[in-house]
Amino acid sequence: MTLTRDPALLYGGDYNAEQWPESVWLEDARLMREAGVNLVTVGVFSWALLEPRPGCYDFGWLDRLLDLLHEHGIAVDLATATAAPPAWLVRQHPDVLPVTAEGVRLEFGSRQHFCPSSQTFREYAAELTGQLARRYAEHPAVAMWHVGNEYGDHVTECFCPRSAEDFRAWLTERYGDVDALNEAWGTTFWGQRYGDLAEVEPPRLAPAPPNPAQSLDWRRFCSDALLACYENEKAVLDDICPGLRVTTNFMGLFGALDYWQWAAHEDVVSNDAYPDPNDPEAHVAIAMSYDLMRSLRHGQPWLLLESAPSAVSWRDVNVPKPPGLRRLWSMQALAHGADGIMFFQWRASRSGAEKFHSAMLPHRGTRARGWTETVGLGADLQSLAEVTDGRSAADVAVLLDWDSWWGLELTDHPSQRLHLKEILTHWYHPLWTANLMVDFARPDADLDAYRLVLAPSLYLLPDATATTLAGYVERGGHLVVGCFSGIVDEHDRAHPGALSPQLQRCLGIEVDEWWPVADGTAVSVDCHGTPGHATTWSEWLEPTTADTWGTYASGHLDGRAAVTRNRHGAGSAWYVSCQLDRPSLAHLLERVADEADARPVLATPPAVEATLRRNDRGTYLFLLNHGESPAEVTLPAPGTDLLDRGREALHTLTLGPRQPAVLRLDDRKTCR
Amino acid sequence: MTLTRDPALLYGGDYNAEQWPESVWLEDARLMREAGVNLVTVGVFSWALLEPRPGCYDFGWLDRLLDLLHEHGIAVDLATATAAPPAWLVRQHPDVLPVTAEGVRLEFGSRQHFCPSSQTFREYAAELTGQLARRYAEHPAVAMWHVGNEYGDHVTECFCPRSAEDFRAWLTERYGDVDALNEAWGTTFWGQRYGDLAEVEPPRLAPAPPNPAQSLDWRRFCSDALLACYENEKAVLDDICPGLRVTTNFMGLFGALDYWQWAAHEDVVSNDAYPDPNDPEAHVAIAMSYDLMRSLRHGQPWLLLESAPSAVSWRDVNVPKPPGLRRLWSMQALAHGADGIMFFQWRASRSGAEKFHSAMLPHRGTRARGWTETVGLGADLQSLAEVTDGRSAADVAVLLDWDSWWGLELTDHPSQRLHLKEILTHWYHPLWTANLMVDFARPDADLDAYRLVLAPSLYLLPDATATTLAGYVERGGHLVVGCFSGIVDEHDRAHPGALSPQLQRCLGIEVDEWWPVADGTAVSVDCHGTPGHATTWSEWLEPTTADTWGTYASGHLDGRAAVTRNRHGAGSAWYVSCQLDRPSLAHLLERVADEADARPVLATPPAVEATLRRNDRGTYLFLLNHGESPAEVTLPAPGTDLLDRGREALHTLTLGPRQPAVLRLDDRKTCR
Amino acid sequence: MTLTRDPALLYGGDYNAEQWPESVWLEDARLMREAGVNLVTVGVFSWALLEPRPGCYDFGWLDRLLDLLHEHGIAVDLATATAAPPAWLVRQHPDVLPVTAEGVRLEFGSRQHFCPSSQTFREYAAELTGQLARRYAEHPAVAMWHVGNEYGDHVTECFCPRSAEDFRAWLTERYGDVDALNEAWGTTFWGQRYGDLAEVEPPRLAPAPPNPAQSLDWRRFCSDALLACYENEKAVLDDICPGLRVTTNFMGLFGALDYWQWAAHEDVVSNDAYPDPNDPEAHVAIAMSYDLMRSLRHGQPWLLLESAPSAVSWRDVNVPKPPGLRRLWSMQALAHGADGIMFFQWRASRSGAEKFHSAMLPHRGTRARGWTETVGLGADLQSLAEVTDGRSAADVAVLLDWDSWWGLELTDHPSQRLHLKEILTHWYHPLWTANLMVDFARPDADLDAYRLVLAPSLYLLPDATATTLAGYVERGGHLVVGCFSGIVDEHDRAHPGALSPQLQRCLGIEVDEWWPVADGTAVSVDCHGTPGHATTWSEWLEPTTADTWGTYASGHLDGRAAVTRNRHGAGSAWYVSCQLDRPSLAHLLERVADEADARPVLATPPAVEATLRRNDRGTYLFLLNHGESPAEVTLPAPGTDLLDRGREALHTLTLGPRQPAVLRLDDRKTCR
Repeated sequence: MTLTRDPALLYGGDYNAEQWPESVWLEDARLMREAGVNLVTVGVFSWALLEPRPGCYDFGWLDRLLDLLHEHGIAVDLATATAAPPAWLVRQHPDVLPVTAEGVRLEFGSRQHFCPSSQTFREYAAELTGQLARRYAEHPAVAMWHVGNEYGDHVTECFCPRSAEDFRAWLTERYGDVDALNEAWGTTFWGQRYGDLAEVEPPRLAPAPPNPAQSLDWRRFCSDALLACYENEKAVLDDICPGLRVTTNFMGLFGALDYWQWAAHEDVVSNDAYPDPNDPEAHVAIAMSYDLMRSLRHGQPWLLLESAPSAVSWRDVNVPKPPGLRRLWSMQALAHGADGIMFFQWRASRSGAEKFHSAMLPHRGTRARGWTETVGLGADLQSLAEVTDGRSAADVAVLLDWDSWWGLELTDHPSQRLHLKEILTHWYHPLWTANLMVDFARPDADLDAYRLVLAPSLYLLPDATATTLAGYVERGGHLVVGCFSGIVDEHDRAHPGALSPQLQRCLGIEVDEWWPVADGTAVSVDCHGTPGHATTWSEWLEPTTADTWGTYASGHLDGRAAVTRNRHGAGSAWYVSCQLDRPSLAHLLERVADEADARPVLATPPAVEATLRRNDRGTYLFLLNHGESPAEVTLPAPGTDLLDRGREALHTLTLGPRQPAVLRLDDRKTCR
Repeated sequence: MTLTRDPALLYGGDYNAEQWPESVWLEDARLMREAGVNLVTVGVFSWALLEPRPGCYDFGWLDRLLDLLHEHGIAVDLATATAAPPAWLVRQHPDVLPVTAEGVRLEFGSRQHFCPSSQTFREYAAELTGQLARRYAEHPAVAMWHVGNEYGDHVTECFCPRSAEDFRAWLTERYGDVDALNEAWGTTFWGQRYGDLAEVEPPRLAPAPPNPAQSLDWRRFCSDALLACYENEKAVLDDICPGLRVTTNFMGLFGALDYWQWAAHEDVVSNDAYPDPNDPEAHVAIAMSYDLMRSLRHGQPWLLLESAPSAVSWRDVNVPKPPGLRRLWSMQALAHGADGIMFFQWRASRSGAEKFHSAMLPHRGTRARGWTETVGLGADLQSLAEVTDGRSAADVAVLLDWDSWWGLELTDHPSQRLHLKEILTHWYHPLWTANLMVDFARPDADLDAYRLVLAPSLYLLPDATATTLAGYVERGGHLVVGCFSGIVDEHDRAHPGALSPQLQRCLGIEVDEWWPVADGTAVSVDCHGTPGHATTWSEWLEPTTADTWGTYASGHLDGRAAVTRNRHGAGSAWYVSCQLDRPSLAHLLERVADEADARPVLATPPAVEATLRRNDRGTYLFLLNHGESPAEVTLPAPGTDLLDRGREALHTLTLGPRQPAVLRLDDRKTCR
Repeated sequence: MTLTRDPALLYGGDYNAEQWPESVWLEDARLMREAGVNLVTVGVFSWALLEPRPGCYDFGWLDRLLDLLHEHGIAVDLATATAAPPAWLVRQHPDVLPVTAEGVRLEFGSRQHFCPSSQTFREYAAELTGQLARRYAEHPAVAMWHVGNEYGDHVTECFCPRSAEDFRAWLTERYGDVDALNEAWGTTFWGQRYGDLAEVEPPRLAPAPPNPAQSLDWRRFCSDALLACYENEKAVLDDICPGLRVTTNFMGLFGALDYWQWAAHEDVVSNDAYPDPNDPEAHVAIAMSYDLMRSLRHGQPWLLLESAPSAVSWRDVNVPKPPGLRRLWSMQALAHGADGIMFFQWRASRSGAEKFHSAMLPHRGTRARGWTETVGLGADLQSLAEVTDGRSAADVAVLLDWDSWWGLELTDHPSQRLHLKEILTHWYHPLWTANLMVDFARPDADLDAYRLVLAPSLYLLPDATATTLAGYVERGGHLVVGCFSGIVDEHDRAHPGALSPQLQRCLGIEVDEWWPVADGTAVSVDCHGTPGHATTWSEWLEPTTADTWGTYASGHLDGRAAVTRNRHGAGSAWYVSCQLDRPSLAHLLERVADEADARPVLATPPAVEATLRRNDRGTYLFLLNHGESPAEVTLPAPGTDLLDRGREALHTLTLGPRQPAVLRLDDRKTCR
């Protein structure tokens, strides 16, 4: 990820220079140098300035800006500027504006106001991208391309006639003819049979629950339609300047877009992350999303392209970051594989919807507390240059599949309380606490490299994938499957027995009936002798070959199996039929990790996170104290503390509240 | 209700055979026989298969299905198949789709997507009905006709131009000219006077509260417009196959449709009931709705046409039925006059919005717990064949009037917290607990057969009806009137003094001011020496001839009358000016029932329900233990326990948790 | 405000005579006389009757009504009758109906169903107004004109094409050209630059947060568009009958309309006030709104044009007024400068959306408790005739600016929990408790007459206004500024340092960062030695020249300044950086009032309110016991109790629960 011959972490932010007179630019460039900034994102919202009238381009100001930045040694992540189509475009072509499920055409005046299937939008966007690519392909400041911006943040779907046509084309591509579609969607139910593909429309507001397979395909289509917008511009860039890397900024564990598919079309994964300082567990959930970013391109370093210096402005209540938290959370991104830390935005805006969003250079300027932290972080990153391109190895994989996510959250399920993001966070928490390094993986990936594979509520499971998973266990793998998994095939059709046959055999169970737990109530569970409880979900299990590890201890399922373990081939497969409380789940996962020989990075006090990265230059131990009290960590080996002017650390290290440390270990083999 | 010469209860469910290959049908038919199924509903959502293109019919599959069922001795409740118009119809005639009050035309893809006033829909529906009727009128499997499906479940109203035209025609029929409408609606208020009926529109979204009389007429019209859809098909059936019974499935105490009017056009009342197993008082509310079903056609046995074998799928959290509950609740329907128990649906769907709804034959097939219960219930119903066509006599009538219900729940009332369904349930609870059998009656019905008549919050009361009610009391009846009754006439115009003059005289009170009780607070009440409290509502009463039975004991009304009793002619009339807590209301109703000599079926432990049915073959005592503990019941007479292989029960019977018993009493005169 | 040569308070209500046959009118007139009514509002919703067809007028009934009223000595506040356009108008010109931000055209059938920018509406309204003015200018009953009704109660904005055009015209007037608009709105942010003013639309529903400056201008425009409707009719009246006073009824502290601007176009301020009897602090908030009414035209007496005799009908739960409360609250309006007490409405309606609203003549007629109170209040007002035209002097001014209010409540702020009405009420409460008389003032007004000026959360502060405010302090004034003040200029652009430079100097502080307090939590504050706490908001302050009076005592700001005081010129300026709890704020304001020598009317028990009015005839002390227990008040001087038949009060006066007293003091100089 480095931009230079020498290793260097990237540092900077969005630089919306056009909001300021050019006289300010020089001050900005000097302050950027002072802070150690080496990369800024330019032009994300500049379309209306770059093309003030259809086909009339004004690149003068951008020429001067890029030249100035280059003179100051600052590289540029140059946007294709298509995140906000200009007013003239939507007035001349109102069909560019997206339409809601209720038929409301959304108005110009905020951002992301384009229908993903709009051919007009795509054509104008491609033309602008071409103009920019041709003009700046060779500009020495330009280090990478930034396509669009946070695709799907506001508009994930459009219900206009053009989108409907695009959806039908997508369905034709997928199914060939209407009979196949009728079969896949099960349209005999509720008499929804189509006589012709032309009769199909998007799932607009309807009197009753929609066809779930239609809804599922709609979500697939919507992810693809936005991906087509990205590819539309990416193709132009690859054609004109094939040497430059291209990215678009993701939004962590984002439900609407299948990032596995998206990342395959990126050169670098980049990510926007806005954990809430008011959430005492924000650092756990965000660690998980960072692991996903690292996993999307198989361990390749990624870029934290946006984060908040302090408070954001779009929550109802926007709590700032107390002193030290920006630094700690920046180190956390590095700890999970990032090679750069960038912020929204460089200089606080005077106007607009984000003028109260914190910035690297606050309204109060260089007198502000925030500016001191900006300069300090720049120095930190320079101290850490040698970790660039460090990779991490994980024993544990968590399976994530957007098809299954979309399926799980369809309506008319036994319970509407299963939300995948919450479930993943719940399972991730004990892994994080144990400092077990975690990758995300697709269910159909080759999983043999992992000692332990977790499949929390993997609702949708095609037969072929189930066979792959079972094969992993047969060859000696350890698999833990969460409740309501393997229920349907790729068309949301229930498997026989409403449980994938391959999974039934692998887990050694049948499920007689799902038994959701009513809101506000819990059922007791005995986890191998330890009392616990479950909320939200339980199941009436009928083990066939599996052993019972945990049992229900109250309610109508009292005495029945709750958690089972089945030897299958050379491995073992566990099933967790309920939503266990956190300690019980931790107890279970500890037991399984032990059996699977999945080993943690290090044992640390509860609030301290530990991760490892390795490269040719060394093994780097990241220690992050997320607590408000000092914590002492026993080191696996002596090391050099890169954040503390190279001080040697021997046996233990004491971290203050919100303090990070990054140690180059002397013996790189001492810990996993 | 029996389909055969010998008495037999009906048993079965919706059989959506078209969702399965024909190879499955034979297995289904055999399993139906194994379970004792004798009736299935066929074709509810089959329009798109029966008429795949306009005017082109395909009855082959239905011919084969009906033949197969008949061969296996299974009768058919044949649907007119109009519950879900096919895609081609709404694409060729988009005006078939309904429109919301905000102007959104709802999309195809769920069900019930038709405008009730659509002439296109009605014409195509009548044509299909005619085709079916002509083809199957003589088919030996066909036992009855099932028109539409759950009218109003999703679409109770449409605001499209065609509906507006239909509304104006309905108003013209009702009022004749615009002056009468202006007078009825009180349009001088807020300057809403119409110069011409053509200026009237449905109550679409407006800036401020709508004209309440317009809203009331709109609800009347909407019920009538859907009824016209039903009658449209019924007329065809009556014409072509006059000998076959016709029904449409009701939804219990459903607010949108005036079931008194609807039932008058049915040959058999049928009902869909989905009490929530997670609601500890579900069995009380559902008992009340069953009493309504029995009352709709004056005690004639009705049919439970849909219920859930275990969990449903459309609540947020769908809790299943624990072992025994399906049996208990099925017996409860019989206890309240049903002659058949049917379920949605026979075989669990693989696809669609209800694939997670429980079924008689679950996803897990004949290995499932649910299948055992399906077979067991079939055997139970055969044991109970002799109760077929048993009737019940009630001493107590509860007045129910949809006009008044609609009026009560209009906006801009002293409190928006009076919801009739809650109020009825509140009043019904002590009656249920006391095992008093209850009929529902229209306020203008002949009530002389009842010893006690209850009128909870009978808001709308035309003068003629008030005269009828007062006459009932004068002739010796006992009447209990709940708060906020008799306020307006049929056009929602306040009576003089905001209380019907006839009712004022009958009750011997005036109401000076309504005094709603703020949310979360209560006012103390002294009920003839017993302390209690009231929530939601109280009133400043001025008794004229009435005695005070209960008084307010706190707040601004402290010391004033709360419950009054007035001797009127040969009877007595009580007024309850507040929402009493449950024990106080029970205390009052016990007192009144005693005075009126209304007698319970039997005294039982609190969780045990007791009802009676009688026919030429015997007197049948239903005992249902809704509790989770065993309960002992002292019998009124020895009897034969039909659910326990004809075991004789002498003095007492002990019922296990969720256990029902049905006794043929040896002496049919021992209890009421 | 008096209508006669002798001083007299006005008394009456809305008289919607057209809802009743003429035979009722004579009874009404006689009962009005019996109750002492001397003014009624007539014709508010009469358009459809006065102009039943386009251009055809029917004034006969109104002629007869006005004659009858005049014969009975009752004056008329005659409406222009434009509050509810007739059906024929909206059917012939559907564009009269307003359109929501989602594009829904609202339907006829309630009231206020007109687009504020509709030229059709304005033309027809002006024509009707002219007809009325010409006919009744000389009618002896007509005492004043009532234009429209509660402008903005239901429709504050319309998004139709005509409104969009009007908005663009307004913007053109304001900005001249598109470049100025782009600059003011900061449209480079999110690429919202306009190439032409014709591209601008109202802020309809959009995918993401709208441009805040556009939203701010939209609110300005909407207030102006409705004001233009008012002026449209006012101009006709002024032209035809220049001698008659004109008003339109305000709604207290109403957010959508800039009442400073509106009041400047009125001859008399009138107000509708509906405090909730169920709110135990309703009397404090309503006192504040009455102070605003008195301030709008610089102390000129105002008219309480609508209030509720007892319960209203439009809340979810409408609690009535217990005996005495109507009288007490009527006296409270007089205490704050009203010269008349009127009610909605005279006679309870039989039909329509407000038939359950209380009336001066209830449904139960003259037998009702309410009628007794109506007659009693008439007598009270006659006893108080001499207070007519009494004025009040206040030491304290609270700054109120609608621009700033609108700005404060835009989205995407550090916290969405700052609501100006709540904040003003919070600050007003200690002033009310202390019996400090309070005026409202515009921030750019001449404030030198006030000893103490409060500026709670004055978010928007143009430089010129900041200079004015600082000047007030420099000349010796005392200013208390609440948190998040002086942040932006008139275009919602952040000031340098996000705090007005003039205000920074005046307050002697800088703000490093806003630090909103999370929902449900609080931060400790030490207020000059007294412990307290803050919720919702705090700030990281950096005092420059200011002293610290209060400090944060917990959380990340522990030990930092929370409340500061800065000597500035001859005065002092305080800054309150957080939302203090009520006792702490009272403590602070007591301290500042003491320093500023702002003196209370009188010290009273906590539930007793005291105000003063003075005229040529005397000094009048209003004492209002809002408590439910008796309270003894020590008088500043002996006086005559006008409400107690002129009884002399010497040293003390004991007030029963909900009892008012109005004393003409013997020595008018004894208290402020």
